[in-house]
Amino acid sequence: MESIVSELSADLTQLRYALDTFYFLICGALVMWMAAGFAMLEAGLVRAKNTTEILTKNISLYAIACTMYLLCGYEIMYSSPEGGIFPNFGSLIGAENEVDAVIGGGDDAPYYSARSDFFFQVVFVATAMSIVSGAVAERMKLTSFLLFTVVMTAVIYPVSGYWTWGSGFLSEAGFSDFAGSGIVHMAGAAAALAGVLLLGARKGKYAANGKINAIPGANLPLATLGTFILWLGWFGFNGGSELKLSDVGEANAVAQVFVNTNAAAAAGVIAALLTAKLLFNKTDLTMILNGALAGLVAITADPLSATALSSAFIGAVGGVLVVFAIIGLDKLRIDDPVGAISVHGVVAIWGLLAVPLNNADATLSAQLYGIVVIFGWCFGASLVIWKLLQVTIGIRVSEEEEFLGSDIVECGMDAYPEFKS
Amino acid sequence: MESIVSELSADLTQLRYALDTFYFLICGALVMWMAAGFAMLEAGLVRAKNTTEILTKNISLYAIACTMYLLCGYEIMYSSPEGGIFPNFGSLIGAENEVDAVIGGGDDAPYYSARSDFFFQVVFVATAMSIVSGAVAERMKLTSFLLFTVVMTAVIYPVSGYWTWGSGFLSEAGFSDFAGSGIVHMAGAAAALAGVLLLGARKGKYAANGKINAIPGANLPLATLGTFILWLGWFGFNGGSELKLSDVGEANAVAQVFVNTNAAAAAGVIAALLTAKLLFNKTDLTMILNGALAGLVAITADPLSATALSSAFIGAVGGVLVVFAIIGLDKLRIDDPVGAISVHGVVAIWGLLAVPLNNADATLSAQLYGIVVIFGWCFGASLVIWKLLQVTIGIRVSEEEEFLGSDIVECGMDAYPEFKS
Amino acid sequence: MESIVSELSADLTQLRYALDTFYFLICGALVMWMAAGFAMLEAGLVRAKNTTEILTKNISLYAIACTMYLLCGYEIMYSSPEGGIFPNFGSLIGAENEVDAVIGGGDDAPYYSARSDFFFQVVFVATAMSIVSGAVAERMKLTSFLLFTVVMTAVIYPVSGYWTWGSGFLSEAGFSDFAGSGIVHMAGAAAALAGVLLLGARKGKYAANGKINAIPGANLPLATLGTFILWLGWFGFNGGSELKLSDVGEANAVAQVFVNTNAAAAAGVIAALLTAKLLFNKTDLTMILNGALAGLVAITADPLSATALSSAFIGAVGGVLVVFAIIGLDKLRIDDPVGAISVHGVVAIWGLLAVPLNNADATLSAQLYGIVVIFGWCFGASLVIWKLLQVTIGIRVSEEEEFLGSDIVECGMDAYPEFKS
Repeated sequence: MESIVSELSADLTQLRYALDTFYFLICGALVMWMAAGFAMLEAGLVRAKNTTEILTKNISLYAIACTMYLLCGYEIMYSSPEGGIFPNFGSLIGAENEVDAVIGGGDDAPYYSARSDFFFQVVFVATAMSIVSGAVAERMKLTSFLLFTVVMTAVIYPVSGYWTWGSGFLSEAGFSDFAGSGIVHMAGAAAALAGVLLLGARKGKYAANGKINAIPGANLPLATLGTFILWLGWFGFNGGSELKLSDVGEANAVAQVFVNTNAAAAAGVIAALLTAKLLFNKTDLTMILNGALAGLVAITADPLSATALSSAFIGAVGGVLVVFAIIGLDKLRIDDPVGAISVHGVVAIWGLLAVPLNNADATLSAQLYGIVVIFGWCFGASLVIWKLLQVTIGIRVSEEEEFLGSDIVECGMDAYPEFKS
Repeated sequence: MESIVSELSADLTQLRYALDTFYFLICGALVMWMAAGFAMLEAGLVRAKNTTEILTKNISLYAIACTMYLLCGYEIMYSSPEGGIFPNFGSLIGAENEVDAVIGGGDDAPYYSARSDFFFQVVFVATAMSIVSGAVAERMKLTSFLLFTVVMTAVIYPVSGYWTWGSGFLSEAGFSDFAGSGIVHMAGAAAALAGVLLLGARKGKYAANGKINAIPGANLPLATLGTFILWLGWFGFNGGSELKLSDVGEANAVAQVFVNTNAAAAAGVIAALLTAKLLFNKTDLTMILNGALAGLVAITADPLSATALSSAFIGAVGGVLVVFAIIGLDKLRIDDPVGAISVHGVVAIWGLLAVPLNNADATLSAQLYGIVVIFGWCFGASLVIWKLLQVTIGIRVSEEEEFLGSDIVECGMDAYPEFKS
Repeated sequence: MESIVSELSADLTQLRYALDTFYFLICGALVMWMAAGFAMLEAGLVRAKNTTEILTKNISLYAIACTMYLLCGYEIMYSSPEGGIFPNFGSLIGAENEVDAVIGGGDDAPYYSARSDFFFQVVFVATAMSIVSGAVAERMKLTSFLLFTVVMTAVIYPVSGYWTWGSGFLSEAGFSDFAGSGIVHMAGAAAALAGVLLLGARKGKYAANGKINAIPGANLPLATLGTFILWLGWFGFNGGSELKLSDVGEANAVAQVFVNTNAAAAAGVIAALLTAKLLFNKTDLTMILNGALAGLVAITADPLSATALSSAFIGAVGGVLVVFAIIGLDKLRIDDPVGAISVHGVVAIWGLLAVPLNNADATLSAQLYGIVVIFGWCFGASLVIWKLLQVTIGIRVSEEEEFLGSDIVECGMDAYPEFKS
């Protein structure tokens, strides 16, 4: 009898492990899907002549991110401190959990597959890097971008990721970033900003007389599709970051995260719609799309502690903020074709600062500390790499290439060869 | 020993709760994805000059639906009758389930997260509203549409939803609507029809001499993508409506729903393909897409009771019906650019009437009663709101705006600025 | 006490059954989503004038595949040998599992819903058929294609599927094909090759003087979207092919499959990017997309046995191979507008031959045997059907129709009526 019960208990533990693993894998697949979202969003917001190149960037950066994170990024980010910074370099993603360790390990026992953890983490890196590709669109050399991707996903992102999620000093200092407003989104935005500052604006964006010219995107249905894909993927991004599902408390938490993520995005849409309507007397679709993303970025810092209504408030502030951030960056002549720095940088800072509003464990000072450290590291390290690329192979395409478009010069093919106007 | 067994039993209950919650969240995410499907479908079927506006409508209506349902719709739809119609107004989505209530609650214990229920329900509202946007496309004022969305998602949909799913009088009368052929699809179609009747047809659609002019959609790949997205999302829509997964009987039921949903859609495609081929001697893609959706709408009333083969039959009848409904509405000069009223209205009625064919608990009279009540309420209440909007701010754009397209006038941007012919 | 424990044990078995069923359904839904991926990929890679027709083909073939597999394909593929080849013809997908059989059945007890198995299998058939539609694009008669689809999905695919997965002689001979590199992908490619050989190349593809003209696809964002959809769907395709999830070992295996699938695809992208860059000095997006798919096809033969790094190697070889295969087929004047035969045929053979590298249970000779048998059967049977179609109703459109495009002639509508150049 006793052995039957103990076998039953072991079976239950195994089943729980299976459910948590499955939850992780499905959430990871949803985050992988965000790569398609960024690709569509950015392809919709650039001009037709630079579309093939931005698609190439997006699928290639996803591939490079996954490969570099496999080769060393994951080791850096989640290595145990005792073992030094590169303890298992080359051992890749380590050993899978044994059944005995799962069943008999007590409270410290692994409760989901090591591989599912890697899968969930690897798709996050690509998200951070996708943010960069939009901001530097329409004027950066493809090769330089891909080389930067290698360094960003192999080292820059994993190091600051380690400081928080890998039990580094930021987590010890009380910095709280549930699903990565700072670690993923602001990190990407900081790297993007460094690149954009060195790269300069697109030709014709800022006229000598101070006039700011709108450069409309070529395909708004694609941009909208991209936003919907990101919205869907974000349920995995935030929902999976609870890391566990298999009891009542955890299941409730994951459900709260889904509800709050959706509420913040919805409120971001409405807030951006109204803000743009008041400012421009138009219902501006691109601002609405950025409003949705702003709501999502803002709530990512803590999608668990707030009620749905508070989450809507946080998302709405994000939606207002993003409109002013986009206008403000344009006034500073920082040219960001898709608004990535505003969405993933400015709004992420708001999200991180808003955590203490609903989460008693967080403090404003720790949040500020984390923001400064992560932003400083990602911006600084990226600036060095971009500068190195600039003085060696160059980071900006020639004027002629910019005029002709990257598609023909870099990729040898038009995205829409039959739709030329 | 006894305490170990009782703890084991509690752990098992918790795990079951976690699985049912996860199943609900994933199904909800699939339904959320249908918002992208409607956006793509409708953007593909309107002309280029009205594309930005329909995209704006679709993402905004999703955001408004989620917000209004959070603010009051959910309370109206699922309030307990004893507490009156607005018992918890302002308390939003209430308290989450406690562990003790889950474990010790007996047969009435909650078996999934309250938040996951809200999440699943909230995405349904947006589906109903998405149906409207297609039917009134290319001629309705954006502001009026968004104001109607507020009322539809805050009150109109929740009230008739309450009558059936919230334990109201329709469910007591024996009306059977598994996943919402009537409550969601026909409700949306009824609201759309009321709007279309007040709005009138697009300029040039029906010539004075009686000729009906086809107004082709600008982007059929988008329309096809939208249909595939809806097909995928429908597995969540119908599959999640079983509400439980965690034992053999429930798991079998959910699997049956997936199979039947797919079989009905596939049969709808084939039936519409053959019908259109016989009528027009062309393989008409837009009819095929509507055939897929018709199969899905038809089976939604009861995707569980029938065999896969019977489901294919129900879907096939839907696929034939939708072709004739689209032709018939055009003869009546009811202009519906995407065929939404035919797909979600006419075919939903077929689906509801077909329930008794396979489900012994349903009766034709109760089905007819439900159809009349839901259609009457949604059509009547919508007509009042549309009329109020018409006599105050107006619902139809000016002739000049209709000629120029809503994109420039309402949204200030073209959807495809470089592809103008 | 004993009865409580035995009830607990039964409940646990039921819950495990529910999780495995859910896992199967979600993986199946992801594979269904691949139908959208093929549709977008192919619609992006053909010319604008043939886009409506390829969309029509893709959604119709999915519908026909699902219906024919329901009517007889599933019976053929998974019938028990004792009962003869058509034992249950007409009984469709049989009975659902009873609770008692699940709980009391011992090791042979069914552990997931029979319906979920059907759902998972049915979406695979459509994948095989989708491969054909791309290869024969832009010149095949729609009716002939749809008639071929009926035979392929009702008989050709199920028969060779039966030989391996249905416990036929190939599985007994030790042929190992985890998720269907051969059974699904190479089968589709073989059927495609047979069609292409009879059909001939598109007008203007191969000039009389030996020059090979590139015929660029009309919409590369769509092609990229299609690739991302396929990548996402492949997690279900390979991940679901483990067939079980509900204990530590199985959960680890499924997680390994997800990681390996992703790593192989990523490496395929990088390898194809570098290969094309070296050969053409361009970063060729269409080669990169084919590289991703090549990585996926290659790893599909065994995504479980290898480490992530070995999987990346297998994917990378696939990515190199696909570039040379596409060039090689063009030299042989075998015209395949989307590269389907290279991706799903040539690379699948590599994947199948690579299985023994990591899986000690597989042998090179058994793999070769399986390749020859499956390729031979699918190619031969398809050739007969295509030939029959050719001599009766014809398989190739008229020269005039090819010049005008299939969209107007076959479907009566342009895909992009307003974007004509």
